[in-house]
Amino acid sequence: MMPLRPDLGGIPLYAPSPLDDVSLDLRDNVNLWGTPPSALRAVQAATTELLREYPRVSAGALTQAVAAPLGIAADQVVAGCGSDDVLDACIRAVATDGATLAHADPTFSMIPTFARLNRVTPIAVPLRRDGAMDVDALLATRAAIIYACSPNNPTGTVTPRGELVRLFDEAPGIVLLDEAYGEFTDAHDLRREAAQRENVLVTRTFSKAWGLAGLRVGYGVGSAALVAAVTKARGPYKVNAAAELAAAAALTQDGEWVREVARQTCIERDRLAAAMRRLPGVTVWASEGNFVFAALDRPAKDVADRFRSRGIGVRAFSGLPGIGDALRIGAAPTAETDRVIAALDEVFA
Amino acid sequence: MMPLRPDLGGIPLYAPSPLDDVSLDLRDNVNLWGTPPSALRAVQAATTELLREYPRVSAGALTQAVAAPLGIAADQVVAGCGSDDVLDACIRAVATDGATLAHADPTFSMIPTFARLNRVTPIAVPLRRDGAMDVDALLATRAAIIYACSPNNPTGTVTPRGELVRLFDEAPGIVLLDEAYGEFTDAHDLRREAAQRENVLVTRTFSKAWGLAGLRVGYGVGSAALVAAVTKARGPYKVNAAAELAAAAALTQDGEWVREVARQTCIERDRLAAAMRRLPGVTVWASEGNFVFAALDRPAKDVADRFRSRGIGVRAFSGLPGIGDALRIGAAPTAETDRVIAALDEVFA
Repeated sequence: MMPLRPDLGGIPLYAPSPLDDVSLDLRDNVNLWGTPPSALRAVQAATTELLREYPRVSAGALTQAVAAPLGIAADQVVAGCGSDDVLDACIRAVATDGATLAHADPTFSMIPTFARLNRVTPIAVPLRRDGAMDVDALLATRAAIIYACSPNNPTGTVTPRGELVRLFDEAPGIVLLDEAYGEFTDAHDLRREAAQRENVLVTRTFSKAWGLAGLRVGYGVGSAALVAAVTKARGPYKVNAAAELAAAAALTQDGEWVREVARQTCIERDRLAAAMRRLPGVTVWASEGNFVFAALDRPAKDVADRFRSRGIGVRAFSGLPGIGDALRIGAAPTAETDRVIAALDEVFA
Repeated sequence: MMPLRPDLGGIPLYAPSPLDDVSLDLRDNVNLWGTPPSALRAVQAATTELLREYPRVSAGALTQAVAAPLGIAADQVVAGCGSDDVLDACIRAVATDGATLAHADPTFSMIPTFARLNRVTPIAVPLRRDGAMDVDALLATRAAIIYACSPNNPTGTVTPRGELVRLFDEAPGIVLLDEAYGEFTDAHDLRREAAQRENVLVTRTFSKAWGLAGLRVGYGVGSAALVAAVTKARGPYKVNAAAELAAAAALTQDGEWVREVARQTCIERDRLAAAMRRLPGVTVWASEGNFVFAALDRPAKDVADRFRSRGIGVRAFSGLPGIGDALRIGAAPTAETDRVIAALDEVFA
């Protein structure tokens, strides 16, 4: 008999089913426009020396590249193996006996899992009907850590900047604001705000707008004290040496590339959203992420299967609290979006 | 006031000082012979699609490449962001209130840190004078998890295979055996043994003999049930897509390259060890890792500084329990080893 944690069996394993039979996979909200050219060049230029040596303990070149344009210090940035790693480490940094984490429901599905892996009790607070976080209800939990995601995954809805700042002001503990989709909205960029406060970490990722999901890079911005705690909780050497160079290159050389792709992404997302709004039994939410989110009056899995039989992968959600079944469909370039739109009538027939 | 964990301040941050002024850095036991050619080619061949898409959730190509030559199933292998990530996740998988972890002292310095980050209490058990783990003393702790490292870091000493198997047989909980330096010794390869037992995880890394420290890849082998628990505790997407392909390529195409480099490594290590045995006040241990470990009768930091002023970086340890001050010097190709040997008389004058 192995002395594994008795609660481990009840914590879900993140294991999306492979979908090798689709030619257009829109499940993961990756950047289908590509990858910043400078990042690809950086990886392809890898040398023996780069691979055989340990990277910087805390991805120094990358934290510098993040900090400089924000006008903050590099020790106010913590990088990790995807923003997942930073989120997990931030939760770990506050994990004490009896600690709680409050989050909107639905939100990024790994959050309650990371909380429970850190032996922190997650508290789900229903998302408001308008798609914003319910800041008062989150605050009322008095949780040691409040997680907010805006634009929210999977709904794409934003919480107004003023409400988030109020959350920062009034939270009794740490606020962890996930801006994974921040490049697709003008609603807020709270990185500088986080750097000026003691208790806020704002995370961003290279997996979405920055087109580098394969490299596993994300980061958090906050006070030097909070960043030091998260860095310690994270452990050393979490960003691959080639990934560090690639992400830093993209930040310094391909900001314009990313902005232009994000602009096109929003255009195509809105085009798909408009086409879906015409369908019966479909409620399209006001997504400001790089995806369309729609509640359905029928089983999402059936609809996803019909997409799949046409070679298109979409993400199906079943029984989301307050929403029911829903689909999330990643934005894609014009030709691919045309293909999704062309399939809609048959899929929803 | 931030509600950070009160114990976090007492957990050390791993932050080796940068040593940019040395031309020969022998502190990290990386492979100074280089990187498997197939791995370098795999990284350099990275494509836009590889970088923009998420890698496999659990590094499928890599776990297959590890499992096949061992004759075990891929679900008996868990990969991670360095073997650090796998070690951390294994500890997390047993982390309950009051859980303990027993380890030799000295050993890999991150182990008590990972234990404490997981709110598991580390119990240090003195290493035996002959450099082997004290299996009886480790067992006597009745710890939920016993960590063993052989060849041990930083001493390089091995624990005999029979003793490790006895540890597997008699441990009340999980045994975590770190074979990070396993390619440099014939003493044991207990991966297949671990796969046949319920309670043992054997970890290996691509950072040492495999010459890929920059890519952050390591893995553990054990029962499918233990591997599933560690995988869950680790979280998804921890191996970079390019790193997964590179490590898998090295395993399938460059095994002979690694074996030959490991053979040369042992020759140069033994040559340096022999030269150091002639020095007064230096006690060279019987290292079977890719490094020489020597206890000193004088402050290690002073000796390391003298090496440094000659452009050579070595790792200094101060006040190791039962040992005192000591140096660890990584093995290097002939010309570099000649350079270290040529410096010895002056450094130890």
